[in-house]
Amino acid sequence: MTDTPSRSLGMKTIRASGQPRDLMAERSRVGAWQARVVTLFPEAFPGVLGHSLTGTALKDGLWELAATDLRRFGLTKHRSVDDTPAGGGAGLVLRADVVGPALEAARGPGPMIYLSPRGTPFTQAMARELVAGPGVTLLCGRFEGVDQRVLDHYAMTEVSMGDYVLTGGEIAAQALLDATVRLLPGVLGNMASTEEESFSDGLLEHPQFTKPAEWQGRPIPEVLLSGNHGKVAAWRREQAEALTRERRPDLWAAYRDPTAR
Amino acid sequence: MTDTPSRSLGMKTIRASGQPRDLMAERSRVGAWQARVVTLFPEAFPGVLGHSLTGTALKDGLWELAATDLRRFGLTKHRSVDDTPAGGGAGLVLRADVVGPALEAARGPGPMIYLSPRGTPFTQAMARELVAGPGVTLLCGRFEGVDQRVLDHYAMTEVSMGDYVLTGGEIAAQALLDATVRLLPGVLGNMASTEEESFSDGLLEHPQFTKPAEWQGRPIPEVLLSGNHGKVAAWRREQAEALTRERRPDLWAAYRDPTAR
Repeated sequence: MTDTPSRSLGMKTIRASGQPRDLMAERSRVGAWQARVVTLFPEAFPGVLGHSLTGTALKDGLWELAATDLRRFGLTKHRSVDDTPAGGGAGLVLRADVVGPALEAARGPGPMIYLSPRGTPFTQAMARELVAGPGVTLLCGRFEGVDQRVLDHYAMTEVSMGDYVLTGGEIAAQALLDATVRLLPGVLGNMASTEEESFSDGLLEHPQFTKPAEWQGRPIPEVLLSGNHGKVAAWRREQAEALTRERRPDLWAAYRDPTAR
Repeated sequence: MTDTPSRSLGMKTIRASGQPRDLMAERSRVGAWQARVVTLFPEAFPGVLGHSLTGTALKDGLWELAATDLRRFGLTKHRSVDDTPAGGGAGLVLRADVVGPALEAARGPGPMIYLSPRGTPFTQAMARELVAGPGVTLLCGRFEGVDQRVLDHYAMTEVSMGDYVLTGGEIAAQALLDATVRLLPGVLGNMASTEEESFSDGLLEHPQFTKPAEWQGRPIPEVLLSGNHGKVAAWRREQAEALTRERRPDLWAAYRDPTAR
């Protein structure tokens, strides 16, 4: 899709991994979920997303990924993309007149999201919402962030992948895409269930065990080997509730009283 | 460091990126912060971490990264690493008798962390704590998770990078390492400040602006061009507080009353 004339400006899909080149270069297929990323490091994509189940799904055309190099929209012969913060302070801010044109060129169907620790926390519910749509366009920040005017102008949603600060938005973009793409029909196959995992019912997942029956003097809990499905289900529920109560009082409170949120 | 006899078993540092091979292969330097990762996708490392500031720091020896291939510890000639969950259910669980030996071989200084949505949420405070220590050993899960007994046996800390489910722990590991390594002295240089960013004072960061003075009919807020440092600081504080109040009532409550947490 890099050479589609209508959006060729700035489209660049250099890859850094050992994956086949055409992973990101195939033309759009009807119905494929569309991921667009604006970044100073297009070579960091698909990265981890090119491996395993998300990589197979990319190759099979279940979703498509195009990375647009922000540097190509840089100003002057130095391709400058940033400048010092108005009002003073450390670091550099990505310019609106660089990011804006890059977003115009990269933009695909679905919402435009700026990955930032200032954003609304990303959740499993947001992943489900995104995957039900046609795709997403992601802006990866760097340095001290991006000029607020470009976020306002495009009414971009600011989304945070957690309460920590990253060097840039690239890893955050990959996390968002992985969490979302794995929910596309056909991506996980029989490898895992999205029905019984953490957050699907508001609880953290119960502990898991597998062979051997004993390891380092530790046996598998007897109930799991009982063959009594009712007892197994009850034990797992109990464990999930205890774990949620202990580790995530916030999730536990919401689970106990959904109306309180 | 892959050929140090005492921990040669299973150490493998295949890289998928276009970065120089020696990024991950240099011998330990005294004082370098040590990152060890146990994963089914060692080729996904350093990935994004090999670019930009974290990549330069890796090359300069400020930190070291070794990825251990879990598959090398697999059982039988098929190198099987997983089996069906005891008690039934979808998916596959990583075996304790595969993960255990891999952790023994990979283990470096510092805590051992299993990346899982069931874990305690990772925060900027945890990044600061980790970076003050000698390093970290990370276990990346896949499928339905890992046998609980291996987590218990090694008293591993379970850490979550956010309230969403990923295909595996690799992107989560990269997020944790990026958030931590950027705090090492010398990594960021003058490119950014860790003093004034989100979470450093319990608030989300104020909006940023840079040249041009007007873009798409939108001017930079006048106060930022006033040259009055007091007024700029007050405006930024006000903006940070308003943003935190609006987007993160949880952070706002903790900021207003730190004793309530």
